[in-house]
Amino acid sequence: MFEPTIKDIAKMCGVGVSTVSRAINNHPDINPETKERIMDAIKESGYVPNDSARNLKRVDAKAIAVLIKGISNPFFTSMIKVIEQECKKKHYAMELSHIEADEDEVDVAQKVVKEKRLRGIIFLGGLFSHSEEKLQKLTVPFVFSAVGSIPESINKNSYSSISVDDRKESARMVDYLIGLGHTRIAILIAEAEEQSIGKLRLEGYCDSLKAHGIAVNPKLVCQTDDGLGHFSMENGYLTTRKLLESKEPFTALYAVADALAIGALRALHEAGLEVPGDVSIAGYDGIDMANYTVPSLTTMHQPVEEMAKATTKLLFNIIAGRAEHQHITYKAELVIKESTDYAARTEKS
Amino acid sequence: MFEPTIKDIAKMCGVGVSTVSRAINNHPDINPETKERIMDAIKESGYVPNDSARNLKRVDAKAIAVLIKGISNPFFTSMIKVIEQECKKKHYAMELSHIEADEDEVDVAQKVVKEKRLRGIIFLGGLFSHSEEKLQKLTVPFVFSAVGSIPESINKNSYSSISVDDRKESARMVDYLIGLGHTRIAILIAEAEEQSIGKLRLEGYCDSLKAHGIAVNPKLVCQTDDGLGHFSMENGYLTTRKLLESKEPFTALYAVADALAIGALRALHEAGLEVPGDVSIAGYDGIDMANYTVPSLTTMHQPVEEMAKATTKLLFNIIAGRAEHQHITYKAELVIKESTDYAARTEKS
Repeated sequence: MFEPTIKDIAKMCGVGVSTVSRAINNHPDINPETKERIMDAIKESGYVPNDSARNLKRVDAKAIAVLIKGISNPFFTSMIKVIEQECKKKHYAMELSHIEADEDEVDVAQKVVKEKRLRGIIFLGGLFSHSEEKLQKLTVPFVFSAVGSIPESINKNSYSSISVDDRKESARMVDYLIGLGHTRIAILIAEAEEQSIGKLRLEGYCDSLKAHGIAVNPKLVCQTDDGLGHFSMENGYLTTRKLLESKEPFTALYAVADALAIGALRALHEAGLEVPGDVSIAGYDGIDMANYTVPSLTTMHQPVEEMAKATTKLLFNIIAGRAEHQHITYKAELVIKESTDYAARTEKS
Repeated sequence: MFEPTIKDIAKMCGVGVSTVSRAINNHPDINPETKERIMDAIKESGYVPNDSARNLKRVDAKAIAVLIKGISNPFFTSMIKVIEQECKKKHYAMELSHIEADEDEVDVAQKVVKEKRLRGIIFLGGLFSHSEEKLQKLTVPFVFSAVGSIPESINKNSYSSISVDDRKESARMVDYLIGLGHTRIAILIAEAEEQSIGKLRLEGYCDSLKAHGIAVNPKLVCQTDDGLGHFSMENGYLTTRKLLESKEPFTALYAVADALAIGALRALHEAGLEVPGDVSIAGYDGIDMANYTVPSLTTMHQPVEEMAKATTKLLFNIIAGRAEHQHITYKAELVIKESTDYAARTEKS
């Protein structure tokens, strides 16, 4: 395939390379007829002019990696979309890499980082279980976005983070359910290892119960199957079925992710239970789908667009040396929809 | 940060570089004590030994790009996940790039292709509207996956494609609805431009009606808003609301994507209509969520995992010179769930 260069264009038009360059860059110092002839030649030949070529070089040179845990969670789909759009604006390539549940994301990052064009890393989701020593080996800046808590032992100036206060917001959701009169509140949790988001949300649940003088009933703390996608509908469905089989009474079910709540909705429906007539259901995340379920889902909405934009902007600013590492906490919003109601009504049914 | 090289290790141990290399590669021709000293130094220093480095170099050198139209469709999330896993196995980086509705994916590909490490491209979704001339400028092999029909004028030996027969499978779904006694079948279509998947599925709908002697009622052909995400729940929801406002009677609604169907379910629920009691709903794609809606969704299931694996494998084989371009058509599966029922029951209500 013939891929013409600026020299070929110059030769075709019988002019020098600098004349072609002037034509392309709209330089005033050029004969208009010559310019027209050159522009025609460029059009016909399929030559990618200088300016685009310069842009292209820039595109080639820079990339960021997004290392994501829990890709089955629709929450991340929205985040990835926004991050990718921000990368495009900055002429960065985005490399997406999925971290398996049994992989260590810092190990994966250490491999990715060997790449010369890589300028930064976004860790999306998952839990934080890395030693400072390991993190220090990463030679590009990185931002943790929507991950669990990061141990105090890690120097806060060595990384950035974007998150909501998962423990506090989770407690707020349970406060709301208790406010409706519920006391037997089941929780569906996934990935409840130390420092993980699931663990933080479970702690928030316990905080709220404790604050209201309600004992935590271990039979209502339902751990999803770790072999399945952590925050998948299937996992929510199967775990709720197990809970129903246990015959442990509950009037509300709080799932620490909307995807889990959607699976729970289905399991309750199949069991002939009405939501919210018999059981109130609440989720967490605020994914798009929560608006379209029947009934629509009460949830703790994370500002996904803002979080994704802030993550990418912060990383780019750090790469460019325009910012220091930062730790930004967003507020989640309690969105009350059809799936939750007063417990009184439940008790009657 | 100190990033030791093999030379640093050699210096630290007072040996030559080739000795360090022998230690790393388990070469027999080395003093065991020297070897131990070298391996200790490597451990302490954090030096990434030769072997891994060689692997890493391989990782660095190769990437494929996935250019995706319609990232808001959950169907693609599953495909991307599988493609990414296949890339990982082959030590390829995957660069994900979202094509805006008004962008030409071949133009984007021409930019992406300038990158030296790029070895191939997967076009995912969208419609085919490119001239052969433009395609020929791509200097790496490419595979179209789940895109609309590709014009006969394009040389079949110049590209690969993985798809289902959208027109035929769509007709099969409408055949099924007609078999249930429905004649007033509305269709929700997105992105119905020439050669697109939406257009093909609309053609299948018309084929089936025609084959059963039913005239196409233009008032039941509902085009979604192109300003919104093409295959989004929101689009399905709003378009169904418009259909309901039009008062045009219908007993079944066929949405050319499950995401649209889920939005339609919600709109019908809000209008006080029962599914399938009053209206049967069918989707297309077979996304995970179709199993968890209430009622669960009858759909035309595309074998997403197989298609994504075949796409990636084929591309890798072509890159490696082990395969010629191929055109593989998968069969979709009609999955009958709760959202469709006999029209007779509908007429009674």
